[in-house]
Amino acid sequence: MKDDALERLKAAFRSLPGIGPRSAQRIVSRILARDRDSAKALCQALDDALKSVKRCEICGRLCEGDICSICQDEKRDVTQICVVESDEDLEAIEATRNFNGRYFVLAGLIDPAFGTGAEELDFERLFEIVSQGIVKEVILATPFTPQGDATAHYLARFLKARNATIHVTRLSRGIPAGIELEYTDANTIANAIYARKEEL
Amino acid sequence: MKDDALERLKAAFRSLPGIGPRSAQRIVSRILARDRDSAKALCQALDDALKSVKRCEICGRLCEGDICSICQDEKRDVTQICVVESDEDLEAIEATRNFNGRYFVLAGLIDPAFGTGAEELDFERLFEIVSQGIVKEVILATPFTPQGDATAHYLARFLKARNATIHVTRLSRGIPAGIELEYTDANTIANAIYARKEEL
Repeated sequence: MKDDALERLKAAFRSLPGIGPRSAQRIVSRILARDRDSAKALCQALDDALKSVKRCEICGRLCEGDICSICQDEKRDVTQICVVESDEDLEAIEATRNFNGRYFVLAGLIDPAFGTGAEELDFERLFEIVSQGIVKEVILATPFTPQGDATAHYLARFLKARNATIHVTRLSRGIPAGIELEYTDANTIANAIYARKEEL
Repeated sequence: MKDDALERLKAAFRSLPGIGPRSAQRIVSRILARDRDSAKALCQALDDALKSVKRCEICGRLCEGDICSICQDEKRDVTQICVVESDEDLEAIEATRNFNGRYFVLAGLIDPAFGTGAEELDFERLFEIVSQGIVKEVILATPFTPQGDATAHYLARFLKARNATIHVTRLSRGIPAGIELEYTDANTIANAIYARKEEL
């Protein structure tokens, strides 16, 4: 039980994504030894966020209030919905400044190995949005992993079965920007060959 | 002011050592979207630690209570004191299981460039411990950086000037374990040549 509060604080940091035992030790030493104000600020920010942050009632993104800023923004194109796995993926797409539609955050993927089925991902709510007749294209931006593929495949069939006129597209597979072919895995190159396009 | 609580929480995580904007985004999304229990646990652990963790009155290490577990441990060799910059460095030495003496945590180094002088590092308190006549050796484990060198140099002179019989040693400079000479910088090799030892 000696130094229990210290150990519990290290364990709490270690349980966060991307923080290992050394980082946890460094963070705890720093904030308790030299920077107690940032510990207090973090504590307060956590408490505030736990109270005020919830999911947007439309897209499922984390936000304060009932509807997120993107779903409220009247300059966004309401005919396109981009389906992403997580808030992180949504932010990554926003950072490109190349998409001006709206989003739907699944907060998970179909994963048969872990028994996560479609029923847990609220596809019905997505369909409700689509069935209002405004959305023309659903862009599937799930990752190119077995789980992302399974989810995209299921979702495409699900939406098409209910609405034959909807366009369901998926991000293209190919070679990342700035990467030498020499250092690219065979699967990625094979996908890029398969999805090759006429050079204009 | 939109989503202010979310932004403040990300900023609070970003201010911690080793956490960049992406990690902060991932952590915040994870704990608010899927793992609110760990956010609550972190909040509670921070609060508890801020209340109960302070510095050991003898060695300056972070601990609960007035005296840390190492300073209380009667099996430790009280004739040796190892002087370290930080709690992290203390833990790194403890992890070797090769030192059984006690510690003194400076919580900083002399850094003329930033105007940090010896008076801020509580050398007097170290001298008080040493002047009780029990300590025979002070091992300087400050890093081999200009600041660490300056601190070690100053501290050695400070202690010797007040107690001519005390042994003041410093960790040896040399080649790290498991490292090829080919990939070692010239300074490190030069130090290792200078401090070379008879092979037994």
